[in-house]
Amino acid sequence: MTKPFPLQDPVAHIVWKADRLLVLDQRLLPRRIKYLTCRNAAEVAQAIRSMALRGAPLIGVAAAYGMALAARRGRRALERAAPLLRRARPTAVNLMHAVDRMREAAQACANGDPAPALARAAKDFHRADLGYNRRMAVLGASLLKPGSRVITHCNAGALATSGIGTAVGVIRYAHHLGRVSHVYVCETRPYLQGSRLTLWELMRAGVPATLITDNMAAHVMKTRAIAAVIVGADRIAANADVCNKIGTYGLAILARHHDIPFYVVAPTTTVDLATPDGTRIPIEERSAGEVLEIFGHPIAPPGARAHHFAFDVTPHRLVTAIVTERGIVRPANGRNLRKTAG
Amino acid sequence: MTKPFPLQDPVAHIVWKADRLLVLDQRLLPRRIKYLTCRNAAEVAQAIRSMALRGAPLIGVAAAYGMALAARRGRRALERAAPLLRRARPTAVNLMHAVDRMREAAQACANGDPAPALARAAKDFHRADLGYNRRMAVLGASLLKPGSRVITHCNAGALATSGIGTAVGVIRYAHHLGRVSHVYVCETRPYLQGSRLTLWELMRAGVPATLITDNMAAHVMKTRAIAAVIVGADRIAANADVCNKIGTYGLAILARHHDIPFYVVAPTTTVDLATPDGTRIPIEERSAGEVLEIFGHPIAPPGARAHHFAFDVTPHRLVTAIVTERGIVRPANGRNLRKTAG
Repeated sequence: MTKPFPLQDPVAHIVWKADRLLVLDQRLLPRRIKYLTCRNAAEVAQAIRSMALRGAPLIGVAAAYGMALAARRGRRALERAAPLLRRARPTAVNLMHAVDRMREAAQACANGDPAPALARAAKDFHRADLGYNRRMAVLGASLLKPGSRVITHCNAGALATSGIGTAVGVIRYAHHLGRVSHVYVCETRPYLQGSRLTLWELMRAGVPATLITDNMAAHVMKTRAIAAVIVGADRIAANADVCNKIGTYGLAILARHHDIPFYVVAPTTTVDLATPDGTRIPIEERSAGEVLEIFGHPIAPPGARAHHFAFDVTPHRLVTAIVTERGIVRPANGRNLRKTAG
Repeated sequence: MTKPFPLQDPVAHIVWKADRLLVLDQRLLPRRIKYLTCRNAAEVAQAIRSMALRGAPLIGVAAAYGMALAARRGRRALERAAPLLRRARPTAVNLMHAVDRMREAAQACANGDPAPALARAAKDFHRADLGYNRRMAVLGASLLKPGSRVITHCNAGALATSGIGTAVGVIRYAHHLGRVSHVYVCETRPYLQGSRLTLWELMRAGVPATLITDNMAAHVMKTRAIAAVIVGADRIAANADVCNKIGTYGLAILARHHDIPFYVVAPTTTVDLATPDGTRIPIEERSAGEVLEIFGHPIAPPGARAHHFAFDVTPHRLVTAIVTERGIVRPANGRNLRKTAG
């Protein structure tokens, strides 16, 4: 008998309260559990922009609730909220999908009060994401052999979604089945989502995990018999190029060099068939200060310059397979992606 | 008329005072300029172990002075000092060379007081390293075309040597000649030698430089027309495999993927012909705490595990050329290395 496998994380990180949205402030993890209260779309957009809330699927869910909050103030507020939420993080396409879905829901009840319809639609959007997690976990785990050691990057976990996560969901479920024996977690500078969030999730779930700095990944691939690299995605273009947290592209090159499969796990809400390839995905550049300081400590001389590319693009040729809730896209190319997500 | 090019850095980072050695504490840079006083070999070994002092060539110079301090207490103290200094950092072979050189100097004056002979030998060793820097800078700069953008990792600069550095020496001299237009500096987790030390040196030298997190290197290679990656080395095996700061191996793979030349700059004191290949180089593993905390702030949950590999090995096939003070080893292989450094 296998023990039951939990599909939702015990710590709620997004809670809908009809007139407000409570959001777990991920910037303070793992040291503090603190919720922000968002009472309107602007506050939701600010929570996304400030990275209190992050992870492409979760950003989509939050944006849906942000639209539901706007709907309480009428149709004009709803129209103002849409571009505000879209701009909050330009790379994650789930955000755009969520806003579009909510606008459709508003149009569908063109003559009535949009507030109850949008609250319902946002809750449906939220619930759907949870189901995606479950299906991706099952499909992704099927790709791994018993006792696999894997590497993951950033946090494509419970905190990035509504359920147990995309990449981390696969890892947790595969561990439950005995298929993952150890996880190497890249710390993911500058925001340290790997060390602060993914490691926290894996430790609480009882999955053996070891933190490494991002620059140790190549050495670990060479010396630790890694079976797979498993990551999430912020946007997948029509040709299956994958945009994800900065560092993903480098990991994909290192995996290819070491002949290690590179798996991307993302719901089809992350697929953007309107963007032909990765070169057209806007890469968010964030403030240099977020690189130049760690916890308020300067790590470079005063006046230093820094780049802060938040994402990079991995060409589909470096991706072994994309795991979606509707099936596995393998090999990862435009034709196969359209068959699954089109 | 070109302006004169300084071959030594204005901030002295190792100062011999006949009965003591003053060592700039690099852990406090760039925020504080503070010197440690070492009065015996044990204190020099501790300065090396604690990373107050770092960089393979500089560690060699410090170890030579450590032996000179030991010689002041007689031949027995000298014999005790040798293994103590050797063990301080197992990977850097310059350390081993320096200790051997000092023991030879002691044997050469078998009947007299070894103290003056070793002080002289240590100063010669120090002066020789300065000359190596100059010759490597000239040779290395010859590999670059005007206006090159380069990436460097860790600190193979003035602070790692007696002069202007190995890799950073090449970059500074090439910038002086108009051959380097911009430097992207990898921050080099966990110790941040890139952001704290290399950026500091380049800014003071007036070389345009931008800090990136280690995981941005692949994206920068793809989008910024990088002409070369230039790094130092801690030990080079007989077959030209290069051991250097963790992250170097990954950068070499990324450079190869983008068809970017990968140059290693190191004096022949870094070459270890007694080690046949990179698999035989001991990789120092340091405390996990150095990864799990940044400036005393925990970045991971309590009880988290971490690896701290301090170095990695880059197979010679990924190295375009090795620049030594005696010539350029190109292609980097055992035969060519032996011709130059044998």
